Amino acid sequence: MYKCNSRRLQDSIEQFSQFGATLNGGVTRLSLSKEDILARNYFCKCCEELGMEIKVDDMANIYAILPGKKEVPPIVMGSHLDSVEKGGKFDGVLGVLTALEAIRTLKDNEIELDVPLMIVNFTNEEGARFDPAMMSSGVIAAKFEKAQMLQSVDNNGMTFQAALQASGYEGEQQHRLKEALAYIELHIEQGPVLEAKQMEIGVVEGVLGMVCYEITFTGQSNHAGTTPMAMRQDPMIVAAKTMVFLHEQLGKIDEQLVFTFGRMHVLPNIHTVIPNKVTFTIDSRHQNPAIMQKVEEVLKNLPTEDKGCRIEPVKLWGRDTVLFDRQICDEIEKSCQRFGYTSHRMFSGAGHDAQYIATMIPSAMIFVPSINGKSHCEEEETSFEDCAKGADILLETVLTMQTKYSMGQTYSLH
Amino acid sequence: MYKCNSRRLQDSIEQFSQFGATLNGGVTRLSLSKEDILARNYFCKCCEELGMEIKVDDMANIYAILPGKKEVPPIVMGSHLDSVEKGGKFDGVLGVLTALEAIRTLKDNEIELDVPLMIVNFTNEEGARFDPAMMSSGVIAAKFEKAQMLQSVDNNGMTFQAALQASGYEGEQQHRLKEALAYIELHIEQGPVLEAKQMEIGVVEGVLGMVCYEITFTGQSNHAGTTPMAMRQDPMIVAAKTMVFLHEQLGKIDEQLVFTFGRMHVLPNIHTVIPNKVTFTIDSRHQNPAIMQKVEEVLKNLPTEDKGCRIEPVKLWGRDTVLFDRQICDEIEKSCQRFGYTSHRMFSGAGHDAQYIATMIPSAMIFVPSINGKSHCEEEETSFEDCAKGADILLETVLTMQTKYSMGQTYSLH
Repeated sequence: MYKCNSRRLQDSIEQFSQFGATLNGGVTRLSLSKEDILARNYFCKCCEELGMEIKVDDMANIYAILPGKKEVPPIVMGSHLDSVEKGGKFDGVLGVLTALEAIRTLKDNEIELDVPLMIVNFTNEEGARFDPAMMSSGVIAAKFEKAQMLQSVDNNGMTFQAALQASGYEGEQQHRLKEALAYIELHIEQGPVLEAKQMEIGVVEGVLGMVCYEITFTGQSNHAGTTPMAMRQDPMIVAAKTMVFLHEQLGKIDEQLVFTFGRMHVLPNIHTVIPNKVTFTIDSRHQNPAIMQKVEEVLKNLPTEDKGCRIEPVKLWGRDTVLFDRQICDEIEKSCQRFGYTSHRMFSGAGHDAQYIATMIPSAMIFVPSINGKSHCEEEETSFEDCAKGADILLETVLTMQTKYSMGQTYSLH
Repeated sequence: MYKCNSRRLQDSIEQFSQFGATLNGGVTRLSLSKEDILARNYFCKCCEELGMEIKVDDMANIYAILPGKKEVPPIVMGSHLDSVEKGGKFDGVLGVLTALEAIRTLKDNEIELDVPLMIVNFTNEEGARFDPAMMSSGVIAAKFEKAQMLQSVDNNGMTFQAALQASGYEGEQQHRLKEALAYIELHIEQGPVLEAKQMEIGVVEGVLGMVCYEITFTGQSNHAGTTPMAMRQDPMIVAAKTMVFLHEQLGKIDEQLVFTFGRMHVLPNIHTVIPNKVTFTIDSRHQNPAIMQKVEEVLKNLPTEDKGCRIEPVKLWGRDTVLFDRQICDEIEKSCQRFGYTSHRMFSGAGHDAQYIATMIPSAMIFVPSINGKSHCEEEETSFEDCAKGADILLETVLTMQTKYSMGQTYSLH
């Protein structure tokens, strides 16, 4: 077992947090921005110093390859270097930097492996600059059409295509990740579960299925002072009652179900005017498709009208539950046992590049605890000690898998 | 009894609706805008053709005076020529044009009165360009400080003072309305009551008292996918439950109480993020101060915390019920009886210049029906027939009052 150098890992996290540092200790490193390109350049330099070969594909995904003694498909680690606006210094970048630390530890110990190792940095995971999120892992996994992605426009009217061409990171399609022994992505949990359970490592078995609906309530605007209550068609009251009803009904389905009314719009949104239109979203997630089915049934069975207001639920999108590779999860768990780190098997409620890569390569994820469950904000925090434990488990899992592979074991898509 | 010329009244309503006409049959005539100045110019011209004298005060309120045979305080009619953005062609202007029609009818019949008559156009009643509403009636009734009003700024950064100076309608303070026998303002109802009750004239006894509160719910933002329900402090759910609770509680207080949740803000308002802050307003109105007291008690007795979220109701503003002059209301009602027009005693739920003028001059209002109760929108509508009936009642009431005054009766502030 090889322990990573926690001091060196902390230094690289702090070094990378300078690319797009915000005043309050966070990071703004939008995909293919100047800050992202500086981070990419530095990442490539670090990898080259370790004797790794850099390849870039046509979506600007970067692959740093450490050759193995055998000419076989690599074990891939990594995540993404981009961040949201005023995000934290761990989300994404930690998966890349723990992979880098794993390889540095191998070099420290002068270990040469049979199997090549690869670190990947996926472009525009956050979707914060160009919609959608997980754009480039989605393209190489044939989830998204590249031609359509190229037309995605940022807030300044710049297309992804133009940003790609200007970045200096537009590589070749033939370099896209295709074949690999496994993909292991380490990430912060972005939730409060590991901290609450006092667990050091999350063994991520998959990504929760989700649906997102928007419900529109249409009534009739009128003057707040001159319209008797009995003559109103007020969609605000109907919306509030529906939200309370959904909260009660969905709350009964399953303890592990999560659902969120995150976005709400009121028209015309004037204090002296009865609204004519109210919309709110409901985002709901669970690992079990049967449970998600029940959620959709509750939504579809809402009355179409109440108190003279129309009620129209529209499904904005959904994703099926993604299951990660069970064998890799088992290897991660066993690595924790060998290191004496506590671990917890769990699902990711958030989306990650691994969910698309999992459709082409046996994949799994490692979570480290998020302090107060916070992410996508400047207060995002994970202790450097926990980061280092994550790096230990990443390296141990990769080493075990490559040893077993050399001895003939294969990991296949289940 | 003199019947007004309904065809001529319709022509002037249509003529005035050209000043700021919108594509969908409405009007945008913001206070002291080019459109408003054109309407003012045309109004002054019409009055001068009738031998009326024009005076303008320092708030650009216009007074057109028809001298009487006696040198006594006038009976005042009028309202306002300004509109909201994309408003209708009746709100405000109808009170000015029915007054004009009343005087034209007197001239048609070659009637000379003992008492002078005055038509007033109050500046910036809507508050749509410069906050607050009813600005200039409020200034002359000492409700607002003029110096503060001058600093009010429109969306383009122009102060009311600059607009006033540029308008050509900045007159003298000594011209402000001070003494008058009575003030009678005709206005569209802006509500559905007269239409629903199939009444032709509303005899307006006062303006409802109101309170407006904003309630802020503060919780904790977190990721919609990764935060178990039991670990959330979600202010959206608490806000929805509170709204339903208030709807139930206030609904029990009094059938005539109105209350509206018109404005709502959610932060950060992203479908994948649990909100950290939700606010909504509640505007509530009733004529009885004891009822309004009960409303405020319900709001003040809300819990200060629920499900880990803070609940903070803040009173944004309120106004006491304004009672109009009972004798004038009686005269209006008797005028309706003489004309055979159905009438209904009611309160105004909306604010009007008359509510401020009533503090210095015996005042009352005449309402005509609003089709579908609509106002402040391009669909605002009142039949020209109903407009003409309103003009009949306005003139009849003014004539009765001036006759009684000539015979020694006085109207005093109650």
